[in-house]
Amino acid sequence: MSEADLIAALRSLPLHPAARGLVDDTAVLGDLVLTTDLIVEGIHFLAEDAPEDVAWKLLAVNLSDLAAKGAAPEGVLLGHPLAPDADWDRAFLAGLDAALRHFACPLLGGDTVSVPSGAPRTFALTALGRSARAPARSGARPGDSLWVTGTMGDAGAGLAIARGEAGPATLLARYRRPEPRMAEGATLAPHVHAMMDVSDGLLIDARRMAEASGLAVTVDLATIPLSAGYVAHRGDTRESRLAAATAGDDYELLFALPGDPQPPVPAARVGSFAPGAGLVLTDGGEAVPLPVQLGFQHG
Amino acid sequence: MSEADLIAALRSLPLHPAARGLVDDTAVLGDLVLTTDLIVEGIHFLAEDAPEDVAWKLLAVNLSDLAAKGAAPEGVLLGHPLAPDADWDRAFLAGLDAALRHFACPLLGGDTVSVPSGAPRTFALTALGRSARAPARSGARPGDSLWVTGTMGDAGAGLAIARGEAGPATLLARYRRPEPRMAEGATLAPHVHAMMDVSDGLLIDARRMAEASGLAVTVDLATIPLSAGYVAHRGDTRESRLAAATAGDDYELLFALPGDPQPPVPAARVGSFAPGAGLVLTDGGEAVPLPVQLGFQHG
Repeated sequence: MSEADLIAALRSLPLHPAARGLVDDTAVLGDLVLTTDLIVEGIHFLAEDAPEDVAWKLLAVNLSDLAAKGAAPEGVLLGHPLAPDADWDRAFLAGLDAALRHFACPLLGGDTVSVPSGAPRTFALTALGRSARAPARSGARPGDSLWVTGTMGDAGAGLAIARGEAGPATLLARYRRPEPRMAEGATLAPHVHAMMDVSDGLLIDARRMAEASGLAVTVDLATIPLSAGYVAHRGDTRESRLAAATAGDDYELLFALPGDPQPPVPAARVGSFAPGAGLVLTDGGEAVPLPVQLGFQHG
Repeated sequence: MSEADLIAALRSLPLHPAARGLVDDTAVLGDLVLTTDLIVEGIHFLAEDAPEDVAWKLLAVNLSDLAAKGAAPEGVLLGHPLAPDADWDRAFLAGLDAALRHFACPLLGGDTVSVPSGAPRTFALTALGRSARAPARSGARPGDSLWVTGTMGDAGAGLAIARGEAGPATLLARYRRPEPRMAEGATLAPHVHAMMDVSDGLLIDARRMAEASGLAVTVDLATIPLSAGYVAHRGDTRESRLAAATAGDDYELLFALPGDPQPPVPAARVGSFAPGAGLVLTDGGEAVPLPVQLGFQHG
């Protein structure tokens, strides 16, 4: 069963109104925002990754979903496998301790389970947050501009470096220690028509926002924000911009704002919404073909 | 790292007051009750188990934690692996659909993830409930009686039958389709001093309640409720009573009530609390040695 088939099947189950039709990454129940994510060894992290980094990432990817709803973290529930390697577990928990303190996000509870020997490590995290106004992914309107915080592609380049490519430590750190945009999300939430985090790639996530909103979206490659480190490493070409726009793990915020005003946080305007459907890609205003892969697909 | 070491390490992390020191199976945040459980193929269910039964059990074991807090289900968040076997997934989701409807518990959200080929299936479920008064595990007082709903040992006998032993379908069903005591939990919650579900075995869970309450507990084997089906299958001997008192997966409610009055739901009085520490086992009032294994340990 493909991920799309599975999600379609999940949407046919009895859904809570707070599930928002499973279009969003989070459930919104009154002022509570809830999200759950699994991370699996060999898929979302590498067996040789430092356990402290795995713990950081587990928390950061969940908090990024909260940030996209303007939510402050309330706490997390952890599902933890009992591995035969006690040193790994100790390092993971030390990393989790540091990450929980960094994000001021206490542990609410959890479950520890045995796993068959040789099974890949699988961690589950459920994060709860509070938001006075949680924007949906589906609220973009025709004429809205599409904005993104930070820079794109750094974590994707960092993944290649983690896999052995030569490259700077700053890009590697963007992959290993993503910083979810908690403050920016809280500032943006009352103003945006729609917001989500960029976890799988700018192009695929922009298309998801357009689809959820029943609109077409145009993204201009020339406007995609790149870091100086990324440009020094990969160059500033159409190819490197396409790579940046389709790489995963950025954990920046993607949001729709009406008209032209600058948003209340640093961000780049990368596109616009119009009636219709689908994603149009341009480069300095000139239409360019869509790449085969719009983003990173975990499968 | 043993489960006890891991839980001790988790308790040293920054904890939310709602975590109640991780002594309980649930977090209690205002009127919200939260619990998370992982189930792993080869540990919590068998590869040859029907996917519909796995889905039922995943939901039932989480709802049993809510029942022990007197909580009505609000909804669940599901972490689902993408398996190569689409038929299995379809059957699992059909079973989940039926179980969600049975328990009037809608889906709030979830996450679907790829897993490396050959990895055991791991499902994560987080359940939310609402309870006006969620009793703790730690509230038993000296002089309280210890009560349990239903009958003990049926699911343990059912597990042996699932593994190939000859035996009646009624016991097998108790293992495959546990019925969490939602109504009983809601009725009991305002009256009990302490409550938890029996998931790992009556003796180990009674000792956990005593330990959390800072008390000693005595359990009398002769008073442990057995079903007619269990007695017909295993007999009514000290050995069969010990097996019933140490088998897992019963998902009945264990609770402490002051003095002698009958509880407001059908239940058996199986013991009593006193100042001190530890578990004392008797059989018709005569002290008997504790078995080596007080319950089912997943790891």
